[in-house]
Amino acid sequence: MKKSFLKIPKYSKVAYQGEPGAFSQQAANKVFGPETISVPCQTPDSVFNAVVRKRAQFAVIPIENTLAGSIYQNFDLLARFPLVVVAETSLRIEHNLIGHSGTSLGQIRQVYSHPAALEQCSRFLRRFKSLDQVSFYNTAGSVKFIHDKGLKQAGAIASVDAAQIYGMKILRRGIEDDPENYTRFLVLARKGQMPRGGGKTSIVFGLENQPGVLFKALSVFALRNIDLVKIESRPIRGKPWEYLFYIDLASHVQSRQCSNALRHLRELAPYLKVLGSYPVIK
Amino acid sequence: MKKSFLKIPKYSKVAYQGEPGAFSQQAANKVFGPETISVPCQTPDSVFNAVVRKRAQFAVIPIENTLAGSIYQNFDLLARFPLVVVAETSLRIEHNLIGHSGTSLGQIRQVYSHPAALEQCSRFLRRFKSLDQVSFYNTAGSVKFIHDKGLKQAGAIASVDAAQIYGMKILRRGIEDDPENYTRFLVLARKGQMPRGGGKTSIVFGLENQPGVLFKALSVFALRNIDLVKIESRPIRGKPWEYLFYIDLASHVQSRQCSNALRHLRELAPYLKVLGSYPVIK
Repeated sequence: MKKSFLKIPKYSKVAYQGEPGAFSQQAANKVFGPETISVPCQTPDSVFNAVVRKRAQFAVIPIENTLAGSIYQNFDLLARFPLVVVAETSLRIEHNLIGHSGTSLGQIRQVYSHPAALEQCSRFLRRFKSLDQVSFYNTAGSVKFIHDKGLKQAGAIASVDAAQIYGMKILRRGIEDDPENYTRFLVLARKGQMPRGGGKTSIVFGLENQPGVLFKALSVFALRNIDLVKIESRPIRGKPWEYLFYIDLASHVQSRQCSNALRHLRELAPYLKVLGSYPVIK
Repeated sequence: MKKSFLKIPKYSKVAYQGEPGAFSQQAANKVFGPETISVPCQTPDSVFNAVVRKRAQFAVIPIENTLAGSIYQNFDLLARFPLVVVAETSLRIEHNLIGHSGTSLGQIRQVYSHPAALEQCSRFLRRFKSLDQVSFYNTAGSVKFIHDKGLKQAGAIASVDAAQIYGMKILRRGIEDDPENYTRFLVLARKGQMPRGGGKTSIVFGLENQPGVLFKALSVFALRNIDLVKIESRPIRGKPWEYLFYIDLASHVQSRQCSNALRHLRELAPYLKVLGSYPVIK
């Protein structure tokens, strides 16, 4: 199954946010295998831009975590950039407190990591009142940072891989609030690459500000027995208290049911963008 | 209107997150007037706890911003804590880059603020590539911090009030990405305080994992012409890919329509909590 869903050229370049050892890189390896070429990027925007500007064929982005919720910034970017979703995968996320080899847990004064990782470990962090939490752009990047800067009183929250890559010590393993900690990742490509098969479709749409209009919008799927897997709403800039709705459907856009439902939805939604129809890579 | 919605004892204590000059304090002053006693708290949890443990009669929390979206942490706390919403208000949010009096814009190397404020100013911040963004627990608190620590190369993003309180200089005014920048705040109290009147109801519920169940849940309102103002979903910890739904309705829980709709919803929702019925303070 793994690599048959798309025509993947050998040595494909895959963009992700963060440094080697990042969870997004692990997700990329799961989908594409280790022989692909990593294109690490600093910001979420630059991940999308890497594919648009052809510095990478694919991007892998985190979209939702079972403890912290949706990665809202990436939802906003999906609406803004002309890319399509070609696959989805998920990873079990284990967080570890990582420090220098000579440092003990009691000596740690600051903890660096991505805000989503800090949030997933909030129960562990609350036990240490004197710890300063420092938001960083990436989990693995925070390990690299405290390593490169020689910050002996700092810890970083990241994967076991990240600790190994930068030769650092794991001070405490599995510090996430709940072991049921998974992140869903989407694989993005430029338009025109339609994957073979796949049972999931993601769309984003805006509605007129009228009573009952969201109910009517959801009815186009319910009336056709298309299951709605996830709904997310995000504010529209410049239009206070108006929203874009992101919906995942258990259906392929080329099925008659789904294409009928989307034609029906266009009657109600002044804005509708199909983000992609794609398979889930287990 | 202002203070007639609830019986407010003189010298009420009102908890909010942050330091004096915080937007939540401005929202508290708008609702309760300046003669109330501020109870500044460090974390969102401690704001809720201040009311539960009777160190304050009321709390004021930010719940949604028109640029950055929902304040998800406060949604989670609303489900967890035994408090009720007794009023809503909103503020126009103007962000300013604030620094020491001898500092110019070009000398700033780090910018401190609450992550939501940093996000609301992302376009401004992107123009200065060499600026480090440092997440802080509160906007006004970040001004206090760079003031107290004498950080001359640091700036903070906060209100004009915060600059004045700590005797700091405004380096650039109105740096938010879009002038349509508003934050909605909720006023919370212990249970048993039902405000007079009010046209809005907030609920949170969980559904069985069945096809079409969200559509059915929304139908209980649509069938009774009750307008749904806002929908938000948040993950349930320990149950991967299951969600709690937060809904705001344009109706009062004591109206026949609304109480019928909620009785109907209970048939579908194993978990349902009414967060409050309340007026909107303009």
